[in-house]
Amino acid sequence: MAKVLITTVPFGSISRLPLEMLDNSGIKYLINPLNKKLTEDQLAEMVTDFDVIIAGTEPITEKVIKRASHLKLISRVGIGLDNVDLNAALNRGIKVSYTPNAPSKAVAELTLCHMLTLLRSVHLSNSQMHNGKWNRFLGKRIENVTLGIIGLGRIGTQLIKILKGFGETRILVNDLEYKSVLDQEFNLEWRNKEEIYKEADIVSLHLPLTHLTKNMIRKENLLTMKSNAMIINTSRGGIINEYDLYDVMNSGHLSGAAIDVFEKEPYNGPLKEIERCLLTAHMGSMSEDCRKNMEVESTKEAISFLKNNILKSEVPLEEYDLQKQCL
Amino acid sequence: MAKVLITTVPFGSISRLPLEMLDNSGIKYLINPLNKKLTEDQLAEMVTDFDVIIAGTEPITEKVIKRASHLKLISRVGIGLDNVDLNAALNRGIKVSYTPNAPSKAVAELTLCHMLTLLRSVHLSNSQMHNGKWNRFLGKRIENVTLGIIGLGRIGTQLIKILKGFGETRILVNDLEYKSVLDQEFNLEWRNKEEIYKEADIVSLHLPLTHLTKNMIRKENLLTMKSNAMIINTSRGGIINEYDLYDVMNSGHLSGAAIDVFEKEPYNGPLKEIERCLLTAHMGSMSEDCRKNMEVESTKEAISFLKNNILKSEVPLEEYDLQKQCL
Repeated sequence: MAKVLITTVPFGSISRLPLEMLDNSGIKYLINPLNKKLTEDQLAEMVTDFDVIIAGTEPITEKVIKRASHLKLISRVGIGLDNVDLNAALNRGIKVSYTPNAPSKAVAELTLCHMLTLLRSVHLSNSQMHNGKWNRFLGKRIENVTLGIIGLGRIGTQLIKILKGFGETRILVNDLEYKSVLDQEFNLEWRNKEEIYKEADIVSLHLPLTHLTKNMIRKENLLTMKSNAMIINTSRGGIINEYDLYDVMNSGHLSGAAIDVFEKEPYNGPLKEIERCLLTAHMGSMSEDCRKNMEVESTKEAISFLKNNILKSEVPLEEYDLQKQCL
Repeated sequence: MAKVLITTVPFGSISRLPLEMLDNSGIKYLINPLNKKLTEDQLAEMVTDFDVIIAGTEPITEKVIKRASHLKLISRVGIGLDNVDLNAALNRGIKVSYTPNAPSKAVAELTLCHMLTLLRSVHLSNSQMHNGKWNRFLGKRIENVTLGIIGLGRIGTQLIKILKGFGETRILVNDLEYKSVLDQEFNLEWRNKEEIYKEADIVSLHLPLTHLTKNMIRKENLLTMKSNAMIINTSRGGIINEYDLYDVMNSGHLSGAAIDVFEKEPYNGPLKEIERCLLTAHMGSMSEDCRKNMEVESTKEAISFLKNNILKSEVPLEEYDLQKQCL
């Protein structure tokens, strides 16, 4: 009988629906008994008997795939594929599907929250007030700064849609390809990344982690930003080099940063010493509706596959090509 | 020669324009030499010689007005009039003007920041991360909660405009009068306040402080709210009874609160012990553009008055009536 390993935790706690769907289909499943993000070795040990993984962001490497002799489908709860060795899966005939639409709105709202928090120093005031200090920080409104958005996929685009409500903000954008549809709707200014670093008051990253984007923003890039500029990363850890960000901020450059994603999670590194760096624990997709949709959609894929039905969200070939190019 | 006392501080620091305007008009001015919010006694002592006050939120009471024998105009930098005894001014023939439009956008953006922060527990995650603790809080998106907005003046309306970008959020509203124009544009649900306390997931206050609104929200009202509901006050301190809010939250009721305004400012009271209470230091209007507009507009009023020109933003009679009714 087919067996499903659910590695991402928590799972089925917002809504029991995905677990009920598996039960009703007579599918056996195991939820990650360690109840935390698995390491490569832990997963390699756990995965041997399973036909399907309903997967989080744990490393599904070539080593893991070699050990997973029964594995036929990886169903990712989420959009990022940096943790899955797609071509190792392809070589073994393992299919990979994902839930690319579900997290967009939740990540865009968290990003906007980070942006407003930095602009108005809400994190600093809250921490001072809880320590009995009163200091009225002067800030800026969104309409009066130049935003730089790098990456105009689903999340970057959703962010721009929300930003429209705030007035005629100047928005500089960059993506691998020019997207004329967006341009007509939103009055965007296309720039190369170097121009965005120099001109933007706030840079926000909405990129996948690939070999092209890993360490894309290093000390030399951060130093070309204005001294009172800010940077936000709610996409993937490692795109901004964390040690460079620490050094640059520690030297007094940049008036703020907001980081939700880290190279190694859980994060417990030096950025915690920088008070003007807003830190959150990879919570971009952590809204009830988005988590529920992601869990239900990835479970549907698992059930469809095991019933020999068509997958709805198989990872497109471009993603395989992109990973291959970058190796 | 006419003399202007500028009590609100800082003043002229974002832009020297208002000070230059006074200089160019040959008007002598003094900026509050204590460089902090004045008490009634301090102001009463300082005010004797001046013809005009360009005023902040310090108490301009009957006692102050009695001492201000030369005073002919109070030009408020901002919108709230709770600190000015309007009828005492009227009895002495002192005119009062204000800048009702300038702060709206800045206050609405801070309120939205508070709302998103509470919904996603950003303040809690930031504080834990800076202490080396990793805890992925599950939150909600704006579209999936019921908002309750009490007070649909300039700021409440601006907030609703911004909220439109987030989707079809259910918005319950309450105001002294029914505003049909807004209703057509935004699909609002009009409710009495008691219904809003019971039904809303987030209650946000956008009211002036009057004898009608002072202590409007007490323990019994907070206890009718859902146990996981949240409340935001960026309007005026004292509308929510602070001690009742502390007691109720300390008992575990309400999942969050965000308070920018306090009965006595600077605030250093018990709410600082409640970690899930987001606290900021009366920063609603503290954006560069709004502060600058408020300072320039109030200075223009002072100059117009001293040159015998017409005031553009004299406080309307309803405000006098409202204060009188409530005494």
